[in-house]
Amino acid sequence: MNAYTLFKYCKRLLGMLNTLLAKTEIRHIGKGSRVLPGNYIAGGQWITIGRGSVINTNVTLTAHQVFGITPLKCPIISIGDNCGIGAFSHITGINRIRIGNGVLTGMAVLITDNSHGDFDREQLKLRPNIRPLVSKGEVIIDDNVWIGEKASILPGVHIGEGAIIGAGAVITKDVPPFSVVVGNPARIVKQMK
Amino acid sequence: MNAYTLFKYCKRLLGMLNTLLAKTEIRHIGKGSRVLPGNYIAGGQWITIGRGSVINTNVTLTAHQVFGITPLKCPIISIGDNCGIGAFSHITGINRIRIGNGVLTGMAVLITDNSHGDFDREQLKLRPNIRPLVSKGEVIIDDNVWIGEKASILPGVHIGEGAIIGAGAVITKDVPPFSVVVGNPARIVKQMK
Amino acid sequence: MNAYTLFKYCKRLLGMLNTLLAKTEIRHIGKGSRVLPGNYIAGGQWITIGRGSVINTNVTLTAHQVFGITPLKCPIISIGDNCGIGAFSHITGINRIRIGNGVLTGMAVLITDNSHGDFDREQLKLRPNIRPLVSKGEVIIDDNVWIGEKASILPGVHIGEGAIIGAGAVITKDVPPFSVVVGNPARIVKQMK
Repeated sequence: MNAYTLFKYCKRLLGMLNTLLAKTEIRHIGKGSRVLPGNYIAGGQWITIGRGSVINTNVTLTAHQVFGITPLKCPIISIGDNCGIGAFSHITGINRIRIGNGVLTGMAVLITDNSHGDFDREQLKLRPNIRPLVSKGEVIIDDNVWIGEKASILPGVHIGEGAIIGAGAVITKDVPPFSVVVGNPARIVKQMK
Repeated sequence: MNAYTLFKYCKRLLGMLNTLLAKTEIRHIGKGSRVLPGNYIAGGQWITIGRGSVINTNVTLTAHQVFGITPLKCPIISIGDNCGIGAFSHITGINRIRIGNGVLTGMAVLITDNSHGDFDREQLKLRPNIRPLVSKGEVIIDDNVWIGEKASILPGVHIGEGAIIGAGAVITKDVPPFSVVVGNPARIVKQMK
Repeated sequence: MNAYTLFKYCKRLLGMLNTLLAKTEIRHIGKGSRVLPGNYIAGGQWITIGRGSVINTNVTLTAHQVFGITPLKCPIISIGDNCGIGAFSHITGINRIRIGNGVLTGMAVLITDNSHGDFDREQLKLRPNIRPLVSKGEVIIDDNVWIGEKASILPGVHIGEGAIIGAGAVITKDVPPFSVVVGNPARIVKQMK
């Protein structure tokens, strides 16, 4: 066993400790799921994670309750079973983000159901972080979706089962199941009948 | 108080210590501003940050003086009051980057006023990191601009007040005030009269 | 000497120690090359790095042997002399990724020769991380290529000498030498005769 392998074992141990730490913040983390170090979590009481999922290193998960937007039913962010969320990804919800089972994301993916304010001149004269948060709609990502590296999934989007989102794609509209979507702005390039 | 909350308090304390450390490098950091851990800073004597701003974790800020390009007046990079620079962002200047007040950026944003060399065959036969740095012009970002996650702001660009830059957009031309710009390459999709 | 400079010396020392650690995992690291901390490396026996190259902080390098795809000749990933791989970048190979000399990448670049499965309905009904890995072809990046921040280089691509890949560009086709390619999807915007 070389030194690097030993180093990886230490990191794996740290990952286990970090998962225990995350369990004190996140409402529910299923059996066999891991939350790797470097994460930033806020509003963990509105977040659930299923079984066998991995939240990779340096992921940001934030759920905020906003009066009049957040539905009364919990959770805001739910991640299903056997998912993999890539390192440096960012999931931020105020309404509802439902990620199904077996969803895999590359690194540095953004999934958000909210934005800073509407597009009217009064608001644009304020600084963005004091504009009221708004949500164009919930984000639903069905089972077995594969989201490429650095893709962004924006508010109000429903991504159907088995879809593939290309690297760097920016998704602002619904994606049909079993289709491939690429580009910024994104367009459908393949679709199974 | 759960263990994660305690963990966050420790991180906040580390952030305060990191801000003190950054103050020994950066020319001026205004009252109430914070520079969170994991940053890489070079040429801090050419960088100023106003009051109440937050430079999030793992940001890279580099200012280099280049003879014949950098103006004699300091600073090269100035960040105004009440700004938020997202985690994993990268701001690199050799000419001038002026970020106004209340500017908010998502994660992994690039703001640069320079590039590695010009486009002629002699230079392209050198490796990029020994080509002479050039600047197509300074970058000016006016007040209350909101820059989406993973956007890139390239040299010579002026972004007007209250503009919104979409996630993943790559900006190579001026952006009018109170407009919304998306895509790679970017185009204006909304503009307030 | 200010405190931040001292801090940077400590980080440089850590970088040297990390390079020694990486040398126990990576098949060959040439003289003067550095592998900075925060990296994740897998399959180091299939990776070689030339002389004078820098693998920046938080880079992920993974090489996996896949029966029937990986050629018998080693290495899977080779990085030449005097290269710079930007922080947060991700290089992942199962077939062959050959990066020449003097190649410079920005931060958060993806270089991959593989993807999760083919596009048929049977596979799309599986979760992506159990679909068989496939490779559309090897990735060859010739000398002195400059890859902009957050660009993605996808399987089967050959990038010719001295080419410039714009920030955020997503490359799915060959790029001629001494050309400039931008956008998502990418297109050639300049080409030296």
